[in-house]
Amino acid sequence: MPNQATMDQPTPATATPALPERGRVRTVIESITPQVDGGRFAAKRIVGDVVRVEADVFTDGHDAVLCRLLFRRAGESGFTSAPMEALVNDRFAGTFTATQIGRWEYTVEGWVDHFETWRRDLRKRKAAGQDLSLEFVRGEQLVLEAAGRATGEDARWLAQWATRLADTALDPEQRYAAAVDTSLAALARRYPDPELVARHDTWLPLTVDRERARYCAWYELFPRSCSPEAGRHGTLRDVAARLTDIAEMGFDVLYLPPIHPIGETDRKGANNAVTAQPGEPGSPWAIGAKSGGHKAVHPQLGTPEDVRFLVDEAARHGIELALDIAFQCSPDHPYAAEHPQWFQTRPDGTIQYAENPPKKYQDIYPFHFETAEWRKLWTELKSVLDFWIRHGVRIFRVDNPHTKPFAFWEWAIGEVKREHPDVIFLSEAFTRPKVMHRLAKLGFTQSYTYFAWRNTHWELKEYFTELTQGPGREYFRPSAWPNTPDILPEYLQFGGRPAFMVRLVLAATLAASYGIYGPAFELMEHEPREPGSEEYLDSEKYQLRHWDLRRPDSLRDFVARVNAIRRDNPALHSDWSLRFHPVDNESLLCYSKTSPDDGNMVFTVVNLDPHHTQAGWVELPLAELGLDPARPFQAHDLLSGARFLWHGARNYVALDPQQAPAHIFRLRRRVRSEQDFDYFM
Amino acid sequence: MPNQATMDQPTPATATPALPERGRVRTVIESITPQVDGGRFAAKRIVGDVVRVEADVFTDGHDAVLCRLLFRRAGESGFTSAPMEALVNDRFAGTFTATQIGRWEYTVEGWVDHFETWRRDLRKRKAAGQDLSLEFVRGEQLVLEAAGRATGEDARWLAQWATRLADTALDPEQRYAAAVDTSLAALARRYPDPELVARHDTWLPLTVDRERARYCAWYELFPRSCSPEAGRHGTLRDVAARLTDIAEMGFDVLYLPPIHPIGETDRKGANNAVTAQPGEPGSPWAIGAKSGGHKAVHPQLGTPEDVRFLVDEAARHGIELALDIAFQCSPDHPYAAEHPQWFQTRPDGTIQYAENPPKKYQDIYPFHFETAEWRKLWTELKSVLDFWIRHGVRIFRVDNPHTKPFAFWEWAIGEVKREHPDVIFLSEAFTRPKVMHRLAKLGFTQSYTYFAWRNTHWELKEYFTELTQGPGREYFRPSAWPNTPDILPEYLQFGGRPAFMVRLVLAATLAASYGIYGPAFELMEHEPREPGSEEYLDSEKYQLRHWDLRRPDSLRDFVARVNAIRRDNPALHSDWSLRFHPVDNESLLCYSKTSPDDGNMVFTVVNLDPHHTQAGWVELPLAELGLDPARPFQAHDLLSGARFLWHGARNYVALDPQQAPAHIFRLRRRVRSEQDFDYFM
Repeated sequence: MPNQATMDQPTPATATPALPERGRVRTVIESITPQVDGGRFAAKRIVGDVVRVEADVFTDGHDAVLCRLLFRRAGESGFTSAPMEALVNDRFAGTFTATQIGRWEYTVEGWVDHFETWRRDLRKRKAAGQDLSLEFVRGEQLVLEAAGRATGEDARWLAQWATRLADTALDPEQRYAAAVDTSLAALARRYPDPELVARHDTWLPLTVDRERARYCAWYELFPRSCSPEAGRHGTLRDVAARLTDIAEMGFDVLYLPPIHPIGETDRKGANNAVTAQPGEPGSPWAIGAKSGGHKAVHPQLGTPEDVRFLVDEAARHGIELALDIAFQCSPDHPYAAEHPQWFQTRPDGTIQYAENPPKKYQDIYPFHFETAEWRKLWTELKSVLDFWIRHGVRIFRVDNPHTKPFAFWEWAIGEVKREHPDVIFLSEAFTRPKVMHRLAKLGFTQSYTYFAWRNTHWELKEYFTELTQGPGREYFRPSAWPNTPDILPEYLQFGGRPAFMVRLVLAATLAASYGIYGPAFELMEHEPREPGSEEYLDSEKYQLRHWDLRRPDSLRDFVARVNAIRRDNPALHSDWSLRFHPVDNESLLCYSKTSPDDGNMVFTVVNLDPHHTQAGWVELPLAELGLDPARPFQAHDLLSGARFLWHGARNYVALDPQQAPAHIFRLRRRVRSEQDFDYFM
Repeated sequence: MPNQATMDQPTPATATPALPERGRVRTVIESITPQVDGGRFAAKRIVGDVVRVEADVFTDGHDAVLCRLLFRRAGESGFTSAPMEALVNDRFAGTFTATQIGRWEYTVEGWVDHFETWRRDLRKRKAAGQDLSLEFVRGEQLVLEAAGRATGEDARWLAQWATRLADTALDPEQRYAAAVDTSLAALARRYPDPELVARHDTWLPLTVDRERARYCAWYELFPRSCSPEAGRHGTLRDVAARLTDIAEMGFDVLYLPPIHPIGETDRKGANNAVTAQPGEPGSPWAIGAKSGGHKAVHPQLGTPEDVRFLVDEAARHGIELALDIAFQCSPDHPYAAEHPQWFQTRPDGTIQYAENPPKKYQDIYPFHFETAEWRKLWTELKSVLDFWIRHGVRIFRVDNPHTKPFAFWEWAIGEVKREHPDVIFLSEAFTRPKVMHRLAKLGFTQSYTYFAWRNTHWELKEYFTELTQGPGREYFRPSAWPNTPDILPEYLQFGGRPAFMVRLVLAATLAASYGIYGPAFELMEHEPREPGSEEYLDSEKYQLRHWDLRRPDSLRDFVARVNAIRRDNPALHSDWSLRFHPVDNESLLCYSKTSPDDGNMVFTVVNLDPHHTQAGWVELPLAELGLDPARPFQAHDLLSGARFLWHGARNYVALDPQQAPAHIFRLRRRVRSEQDFDYFM
């Protein structure tokens, strides 16, 4: 038999394979949330939000683990920390409040807490009646080590605690009391050995926006149709005159399609006719003419100074102005002559117009982002944003962002928000889901959704559950639009007045952010250009319209009522609390939202059938909503003002679309006042 | 009005904010699978596996996107590529075959395919009757660009194609035919402009093991109980004499608990008595004595040379030897005297023994991995693995890996597998889920599971669905054990012979890798040390046992039959195809597995109630299993040999546990032979 003892000799150090740097660090940190693509992109929150960060933190063996959340404004070198509490299954949670808008970042640290391990075990030893004298010496060592890492008052306190633990003159019960003292534990845990602390290897980014990024109601209109006189081209000053009405309807963002000079070459006529007749105004999206491009205002609308005036006037009405950013040019745009290299050239030397073969859009030149001069192009396009920001604009609705490179938007939005963190970008992309998500991830503040095409109970439930509960909710903030100048959905074409009411209630209560294209919406414009089309007949995209805003059948007051309900009920100011509830009639849709403090509960029931009365039994999750199943509660319909006294989870609802196709209930708990009578709050 | 044209001038270059390096690259690559923690850890496969890689790949706008999968052995600088095919929703898939064991890596490239975009659009233009002459010139340009990037024969071919496209003497139909020629498209797509190609920013790692990493049947025994004579200490030579029997039972791994010298200090006695009586052998996990430590063999068992002999003998029987790695020491281990700094010292200067307060394990010294000498300690522990590898061992079962640092295992397993990629590590961790998963991620080849404590229909279905369909399946390879020397589950204590049969069938058919601790298992050892305990009475952990292997009630033949069924049916060699099927009796569990080529289908029905006959209607997903609902099929019970002719999805099953508590059906489709008679295959 060989000499076994010799065989146990360590292998010579020369044979050592490469060892990690910090092999003594035993704690593991995994699966931090929120986290978007491993920290490649930022999660999004609103200023004032309590940001909850969770992580799996554990170590080998049975030692106690501590961890903490580190957070800071991006760019700072220091950080603030917050303790993390153990949940179940090795998961911990901590929070911090996002006190300012801008970019933040956070990460997690964890370590084996030797003092806490010792303290926990000491309790068990005591309970088992073991002799603790050696343990007190070990405790003294641990506290002295912590004292050595502490400074000032803490160091002195820890040293005093150590002395007490070591004091053999004391009664063992007194030493034990000192050892398990919670203030000692709280002090000791603040000074882990930095050599043994694990930190997640990256700081995770967070974008903190102002509240309007999550909660807003948009009103879109064409300024050129705003003239009070039929036939006259409207101006930005005419738009200013509309602000009182828009504010009374309860909107807080006014969004204008492009306001720039419109090209003459290959200008489209009414109803998208290939050739405009003389005097026809053309499409506002054919941007650029002799009088300027993206930094100019159409001469018939006004001047950039009028934009500043409109911004200020709107602000006085509690409204923000949103401009359209459509990065494309008419053939008459100054860029086309001055920077032909920013466009693709056809083999015949002309600039390539937009095409979706076999369709041709000769009035539009798309930019060629693969140009060797991409740096100049990007810089110039960003300067367009800067230009309007200088004129007071803080919200941009971006037209077709998915036809420009993702990298461009990430850079441009990143740079703008670095300089102006209050700027909001709405992504107009009704394209493939992953493209829409990428745009949201890379920085767009809000995103249009497929809401316009989701009509049935199943569709709406599935889609809004995905939007509000799926992983994308960390970065994709939905905006629901029942109509846009490009989308007149079939439901609105055939459903009559109830259809408009249904879609408005759905948009305004399912989504914290929504918008309508008016006055087409409140005046229930519903004729398509041709059967099967979602284009409006006589669309404002190609011609002036004069709207009779005082038409007695206008939905103006209904819109105002719905927006007032939104404003009064914090439950409707965010999306994550949305929950759908069972109902035994698929023509009805039932859902609730609650405010973060649970003080405000809104329960909405919508009849999706615009033609027939539908009725059914709805089922409320009383426990989830904090309602006592043994006591009646009040369902206060904020639309009609009616109040119902409901008992238990199942309640009956009937909705006649000709009367009111929806209830927006505020649920009120019955509580007993100090004066000993019941009331509902 | 200001001069608008001037305002459209680009901002001077000096104002340019930092631009990205490759702004012309428009393609995005996201969500590559498989991917473990963003590539921090390797996914796992078996040699010969077709590795399917998927990714979301898309670009802005409507251009055609191409992508390809790049793969290589880790450490190589070049790579091989494979095309990726479009699925739905911007997802692409490609495959490569893992032809060798070891570490591989893969990534994905994507780019806008201008030629394909042009070709696709050309077809639409043609269909719309547009003039194509300019388009042919554009096509010529694109093909010439590709030719410029190609070399040799390809470059010449592309140049010829370009000439053909440009040839105005040709009939337009001929030029069109050339333009849309599939061989031109195939050639052109091979030469994208490298400046426009996006590549995912990391190579994702993949560990490729030999087949036994995924499919194996383990048999565990205590060598010291292997003597044919009662009362004599068994030897490794005695174990060799058992190999024929073990091979006949169908096992392919023989696993021995620690075979090293056993400490004398504080040695435990029979049934874990605190003090051993003279002559008692002690626990094999109290490793180390005067005669050596982890690189020595217990003198009564033999020598390291006997290990080599046993490895070779086992190989002749188609069996591999697995050794236990328990990194802990008895107080008599040479390390304790030679390297006291590798252990924690108590305040009285003695070495800290293992504790789980108030319990004390004075016969065990755990290593202190936070020691300043951790580098020496790690290196020495790895040298233990190297030592046994030099003696021919290629499989290690690691005892309590979760009580040693994760970083240590990641390093040690990584280094061993770099040198010996055929080595297999089984993680013995019955601890918290995230700890078990971390061990699997960092490199353990296989992992023990909670199978021993999953008994009911719901428990088994939930747990094995998670194991085989959850995201952890990429790295966590389950091993199912009905019993171990530490675990005598209550189900086996009280269920009698049927319980052992049930648990064996479940382990062997739910999991491609499983093991039993014998002969305790086949001899149905079921007495616990005390009521409520999962410890065996008279456990081999603390004493020698003499087993009557010829007992007529031994399950030996049943075990052999089940293992033969496993061997004959490729469906049982992997786990991902596992699917549970509905049955109207919760005491029955029904599930199927299919081979990758669908040629082999195994459908198992187990009566989980060891006391009563249970019957019910099972429901087979005929379409999923490729069975024609209009034709009968054969359910061939491989356990009993009986064949049933079944029709349709619902079929009746009754199982008397006293007879046979399970069916393991091979399902055979009825097919028509060339000689025009039906048979089942």
